[in-house]
Amino acid sequence: VTNPPTPDLLPALIRLVGAAQVLVEPADIAPFSTDWRGRYSGTPLCVVRPGTVDEVAGVVRLCAQADVAIVPQGGNTGLCGGATPIGGEVLVSLVRLNRIRDVDALNNAITVESGCTLQQVQEAAAKAGRLFPLALASEGSATIGGNLSTNAGGVQVLRYGTMRELTLGLEVVLPSGEIWHGLRALRKDNTGYDLKHLFIGAEGTLGLITAATLKLYPRPRYQSTAWLAVRDPASAVRVLAALRESLDNTVTAFELMSDVALGLVAQHIDGAPLPLQQAPAWQVLVEFSGSAALADEVPQALMALREIGEISDAVIASNDTQAQAMWRLRENISEAQKREGVSIKHDISVPVSRMADFIARADAQLTQQFPGLRIVCFGHVGDGNVHYNLSKSLTQDNAAFIKSAPIANRIVHDLVTEFGGSISAEHGLGQLKRDEIARYKSSVELDMQRAIKRALDPTGRMNPGKLLPSCRH
Amino acid sequence: VTNPPTPDLLPALIRLVGAAQVLVEPADIAPFSTDWRGRYSGTPLCVVRPGTVDEVAGVVRLCAQADVAIVPQGGNTGLCGGATPIGGEVLVSLVRLNRIRDVDALNNAITVESGCTLQQVQEAAAKAGRLFPLALASEGSATIGGNLSTNAGGVQVLRYGTMRELTLGLEVVLPSGEIWHGLRALRKDNTGYDLKHLFIGAEGTLGLITAATLKLYPRPRYQSTAWLAVRDPASAVRVLAALRESLDNTVTAFELMSDVALGLVAQHIDGAPLPLQQAPAWQVLVEFSGSAALADEVPQALMALREIGEISDAVIASNDTQAQAMWRLRENISEAQKREGVSIKHDISVPVSRMADFIARADAQLTQQFPGLRIVCFGHVGDGNVHYNLSKSLTQDNAAFIKSAPIANRIVHDLVTEFGGSISAEHGLGQLKRDEIARYKSSVELDMQRAIKRALDPTGRMNPGKLLPSCRH
Repeated sequence: VTNPPTPDLLPALIRLVGAAQVLVEPADIAPFSTDWRGRYSGTPLCVVRPGTVDEVAGVVRLCAQADVAIVPQGGNTGLCGGATPIGGEVLVSLVRLNRIRDVDALNNAITVESGCTLQQVQEAAAKAGRLFPLALASEGSATIGGNLSTNAGGVQVLRYGTMRELTLGLEVVLPSGEIWHGLRALRKDNTGYDLKHLFIGAEGTLGLITAATLKLYPRPRYQSTAWLAVRDPASAVRVLAALRESLDNTVTAFELMSDVALGLVAQHIDGAPLPLQQAPAWQVLVEFSGSAALADEVPQALMALREIGEISDAVIASNDTQAQAMWRLRENISEAQKREGVSIKHDISVPVSRMADFIARADAQLTQQFPGLRIVCFGHVGDGNVHYNLSKSLTQDNAAFIKSAPIANRIVHDLVTEFGGSISAEHGLGQLKRDEIARYKSSVELDMQRAIKRALDPTGRMNPGKLLPSCRH
Repeated sequence: VTNPPTPDLLPALIRLVGAAQVLVEPADIAPFSTDWRGRYSGTPLCVVRPGTVDEVAGVVRLCAQADVAIVPQGGNTGLCGGATPIGGEVLVSLVRLNRIRDVDALNNAITVESGCTLQQVQEAAAKAGRLFPLALASEGSATIGGNLSTNAGGVQVLRYGTMRELTLGLEVVLPSGEIWHGLRALRKDNTGYDLKHLFIGAEGTLGLITAATLKLYPRPRYQSTAWLAVRDPASAVRVLAALRESLDNTVTAFELMSDVALGLVAQHIDGAPLPLQQAPAWQVLVEFSGSAALADEVPQALMALREIGEISDAVIASNDTQAQAMWRLRENISEAQKREGVSIKHDISVPVSRMADFIARADAQLTQQFPGLRIVCFGHVGDGNVHYNLSKSLTQDNAAFIKSAPIANRIVHDLVTEFGGSISAEHGLGQLKRDEIARYKSSVELDMQRAIKRALDPTGRMNPGKLLPSCRH
């Protein structure tokens, strides 16, 4: 339980960052106090928008003195309520910390403040002739701090890894208000415990990330995008393996989509004709990045897969417009499902080799339990990560469907665990799954997590009510 | 200070693992009690060789009950004394834990016990048609557990990353004797703090790694190896950037070597003619992995660099034998330097973009301080990691040279830090640099390291005297 804040806290915050950057009116606070899916809401004591790292450190020290909890927030695009207050905290919005501090093209590294949007970082990299490969639907408003705190993934993980693997160094304001200057721009550094990996994916429960040094890559010189018809998920997994064997790590994306998912897109999104004449049960969007030799190599590899019957049809985009149209089909699945009505979503991962069995088993259990249920399955098969979403049967009413969510979640998450998978592949735990995870992790692992929380945030004031089943000791 | 061990400990260990696996005789213990460079030595209470994970856990529990410290040891090939006892510990040798537990080619993952040698893992991957890309000179005897505990690097980091980036999951026996079953084979998993990254690079100070799930990759279909003459390190860095821009991530190795380094190879190693007629001051070994199109693309890219004067000469290996001969020149540098006499070695990293300035500044300061000193500089420029080694002047005697090591180290390490670098890029701290690091890390960072040590090893019994300036509280 938080002590009543000292009456001095608000005036002290105003003295530190200026009255314009301390919001207390309900109308001003409203945009920060609810997550964008509208599932979580809490009223913070105030919203503070520091403009420098030293101001962030000052805010955190004042909160420490007053024994008031802190919620860090970036673009407020999280999907699990991890940046939404539970009530009574100081919400620290990082959006004013949005400078690109340094771009070092020869070192393939960029140093940015955590309030930069992902798109801002992509653009700064492009301007220097480099690629920052993280790509997400929300990149125009999601911030780097949020991407780091949730270890964001997306469609390019197959080749470039998640946010964690793209990070070289961090600058973090610790719960005490001290600053850890860990902005190293090194590929190799073995001088003690790797602290940055503790803060990445910690959802703001150990400290407040203020800046990061991130990896850059050469920009792809040539890309080839293709749309394939496959028999089933097992076939998709074999096709991926075959393409990686013949074309190695030129495979930069491999997205599987069910006919149900693409049917919703065709129904709800204008101007989105499917690339293939026939409508196979499963389709794949595959992207290759490499040299111009791909213009010959990709058709050869796909032809070989057609000859052995592993793919039944294929189209290669003949220009950028066609490639973009293919990507739009994939990216519109979530929007189409939203237009169709309420949904129950699962962001899960299993080993790639077990994906097909998982989908078959989950489909069977769910359709037995909920006749007429529509399974909208699509996603990053190359990472073993699908969005296994559910839309209600055409006859069921919304209330009954929503009420069935806990049973559906239990079926999916139990099965994911049986297959050695994760109940949160790329969205984090936040408030949504913080209790759910206790069912699936061993007490040994939960005890270690709590020991680390106590070690780095002994008073439990960093983003309480998130990630760990119990955050306040 | 360690309490006197209970008299029951040795008999209890013998009951657990059998008398043949508990070594106490000086002659039996000797191979374990000195590091392979012969710089550190300590007498353990005994050497225990458990054969299963449950036996490891049992050994750790018995040591906990007796309040006796533990030193984990793999192949004993470490370069910093991290696996050598300081005296009085139970040395737990993991070499009998050497099963390949699972190879999952479709998931590109392999699960191995920590006593497997790196070579054993490479071979198991190859047998399944896959590549495990970590490659080190000591791979025939270095174990996976040691590779993990030191976050090993090597020559393929440019494309595939260090051991840390190759690891999906771990199984660890904690200081309490509990087992953390963290062998996940997932590319995406965001369900709390990433514990595996704490144990990787921890040099056995937080727990005892018993198994790991590691990433596999497609095997390269086509490789091209070339030997280049460049003017200076700055030119080498620009050549690397240009090659990565034109040939993207087909660049899998980029090794810079000074004429001094290659001169020692020519002098001491039989049958090692240098590939280029002229002897330029700096030479580069570069390896490309990709499709057969490289046969055209590599010569074109090198020609373009010759035309702008960035490289003055180049040879492309025309077959595997020539490629292997080039690699042998690079790999024989350490051996040649050893035959030349005593040396002072620095395993350091700086941002790639600052490598040339670092080398120039370090060269100038060292040759001013030690006239006639020979600087043997070579290594992984693509990772910003060179082995900046020193051989004495031809007239100096060994004793005087060795005595100058602290001054040379101070010059190099201070300069590395000024350039934002690391004083241990890929070898770890062990006993060698555990005190040195305190000069270069902030108290904020050292305090966090100590807080984590206390949180996970509260009685300080895991590998005392390594990594942290103070390990016993």
